[in-house]
Amino acid sequence: MSPRGFPEAEYQARLARAQTAMDAAGLGALLLTTEPDIRYFTGFLTRFWESPSRPWFLVVPASGKPIAVIPSIGAALMATTWIDDIRTWSAPQPEDDGVSLLADTLREVGGPVGVPSGYETQLRMPLADYARVKAQSGLTFTDDSGIVARLRAVKSTAEIEKIAETCAIAGRAFDRLPEIAGAGIALSRVFRDFQRLLLEEGADWVPYLAGGAGPDGYADVISPADDTPLQPGDVLMLDTGAIRDGYFCDYDRNVAIGRANAATQTAHTRLIEATAAGFEAARPGAEARDLWAAMSAITGGGEGAGRLGHGLGLQLTEGLSLTAQDRTVIEPGMVLTLEPGIATQNGCLMVHEENIVITETGARALSPFAGPDLPVI
Amino acid sequence: MSPRGFPEAEYQARLARAQTAMDAAGLGALLLTTEPDIRYFTGFLTRFWESPSRPWFLVVPASGKPIAVIPSIGAALMATTWIDDIRTWSAPQPEDDGVSLLADTLREVGGPVGVPSGYETQLRMPLADYARVKAQSGLTFTDDSGIVARLRAVKSTAEIEKIAETCAIAGRAFDRLPEIAGAGIALSRVFRDFQRLLLEEGADWVPYLAGGAGPDGYADVISPADDTPLQPGDVLMLDTGAIRDGYFCDYDRNVAIGRANAATQTAHTRLIEATAAGFEAARPGAEARDLWAAMSAITGGGEGAGRLGHGLGLQLTEGLSLTAQDRTVIEPGMVLTLEPGIATQNGCLMVHEENIVITETGARALSPFAGPDLPVI
Repeated sequence: MSPRGFPEAEYQARLARAQTAMDAAGLGALLLTTEPDIRYFTGFLTRFWESPSRPWFLVVPASGKPIAVIPSIGAALMATTWIDDIRTWSAPQPEDDGVSLLADTLREVGGPVGVPSGYETQLRMPLADYARVKAQSGLTFTDDSGIVARLRAVKSTAEIEKIAETCAIAGRAFDRLPEIAGAGIALSRVFRDFQRLLLEEGADWVPYLAGGAGPDGYADVISPADDTPLQPGDVLMLDTGAIRDGYFCDYDRNVAIGRANAATQTAHTRLIEATAAGFEAARPGAEARDLWAAMSAITGGGEGAGRLGHGLGLQLTEGLSLTAQDRTVIEPGMVLTLEPGIATQNGCLMVHEENIVITETGARALSPFAGPDLPVI
Repeated sequence: MSPRGFPEAEYQARLARAQTAMDAAGLGALLLTTEPDIRYFTGFLTRFWESPSRPWFLVVPASGKPIAVIPSIGAALMATTWIDDIRTWSAPQPEDDGVSLLADTLREVGGPVGVPSGYETQLRMPLADYARVKAQSGLTFTDDSGIVARLRAVKSTAEIEKIAETCAIAGRAFDRLPEIAGAGIALSRVFRDFQRLLLEEGADWVPYLAGGAGPDGYADVISPADDTPLQPGDVLMLDTGAIRDGYFCDYDRNVAIGRANAATQTAHTRLIEATAAGFEAARPGAEARDLWAAMSAITGGGEGAGRLGHGLGLQLTEGLSLTAQDRTVIEPGMVLTLEPGIATQNGCLMVHEENIVITETGARALSPFAGPDLPVI
């Protein structure tokens, strides 16, 4: 597998693109608070974000390198990145949990301060502390105009390679499904064992696993596994967001247990056709809604079909949505999921998902695309 | 293992406590947006929160049951909980991503609206949409006065049982460490394999794993594993936040590879003494800082010792902090970690961690407490 991390030039390029966009938007600084946004500009990679107790800040100035304003527990790890200016406090310290240090830093850098505030963004700090930072800094705070999301949406060659590696890991785990799934085995045990396979095949960890099983498909795609044993004729779906070196895959596989019934087989074939249509439509200059239209023309459901794919990278889902409304223009370097769903019967559905990257001439598969026949195990 | 979920009476009791506190604080509604807060009042358990694309809302009224305002993709799962009033929209829909539906619901319920805004809280929705909800509802928005955090800090018997089960799972996995760790094995492989052991022993998934290794301990406790092979004489630490049925454990184990050197053995013994001192101090009526003082008196470091433990439950870390400043009064039902750290040499440290619950008469161990001798594997 490829070496971990990126050369410093990767981060320099990200910063340069950000600062060009900040200049155009008239921003003096970006204030970033979330794991993916901070990692994007620094390479700071840790699972410690699972703890909500401490806020972390990155200030991207209009010129010069980003400044990390972080709890001292992260200083040693941040010092291994390309960031030089690391300012720390001993968190948690509820009465001033980095507020003064951040306000001082922002005042030094100057505003207006762009904070990601639009679609899909979150502010990872207490609202009360955010109000204090705004007041203490005396600067103007505004939206980041979507700058960070747009930058992150177009991946570098090195990023695409990392996502491809994670996809390959999941592909090897899916190939081993017959080892762990079969009639009489509880779905909860299949979930556990599939996570084990992902780890054995090289995933660093498995932030996301969903799925379902039943004779007609499954009722939804977000429920946790229960202890119901798989039955002959069930279709089993597993959808994983595994990680290697900080980059996600996000795709699924459907398999039939023992035998495939005609309805789920037909639905699977239709889903693969829809995926192929989405793949064909995924060209530079198309809009996100065009990919949605190509897939939903085959799977049906109209606007009720919902979202049939999304961006992918540092997060399981990020950026554009393949919906009837999304007019985001597809660009080379975007990494997307194609995720058509189809109603089967008895209130059930089936979903298929693959991962692609957009090139100058069209789409390229990152996950090992499934064929039309529903595999029987 | 115990059945999944809770009887409805558990949620009724949580709601009643919340509404009593809301009445005292003069709140007409609570607006909740995060996974643990929404799960606490509903039982809605899914890994789908890994996707940041959709906001989810729960409105807790001053009287009557909570109202879920959620993306339609979650309707089927929410309908399996005790919640009756489930209002959905087809998310993502960036131009109105639940904003109108939420504002209407809040107007119907009435304000003032309490939103968790203080220490350790986050608002899981775009800032711009939050501003729209405030404007469209026409209601007063304010802090929740810490109501939700205080409720969550004191666990029910059923919750404590769940945390104890997760602790037992991790205990069985730690007992199997000799199967996966030894001289010549890369730390990254140990991390992967330990996650596998946790799954095999019954974890639903493994949201958190940290650790480190070296002859004198480790440089920090948040770095990801690298591919350096373990060496004879290294001390290896693994710290896990595994989950079963939505409840975390959070504790660690130190082991020596092949042989224990005198310095790490001494440090380990000291850490176990400090843990015992924290355990002894953990009684109803004590303050969080008293537990910190009892442990830091043995490990040293003064205020620089930082946080030596924290609350635990629906999150890896939640609620109080065992720091020199935290004056939270310890109550029966609180579940805590005791996590003393000690400086060794060459800039390294060692950390030990166990999990406890506070009873009427003192602390009770939830994790299988380690003994003073550094185990050699």
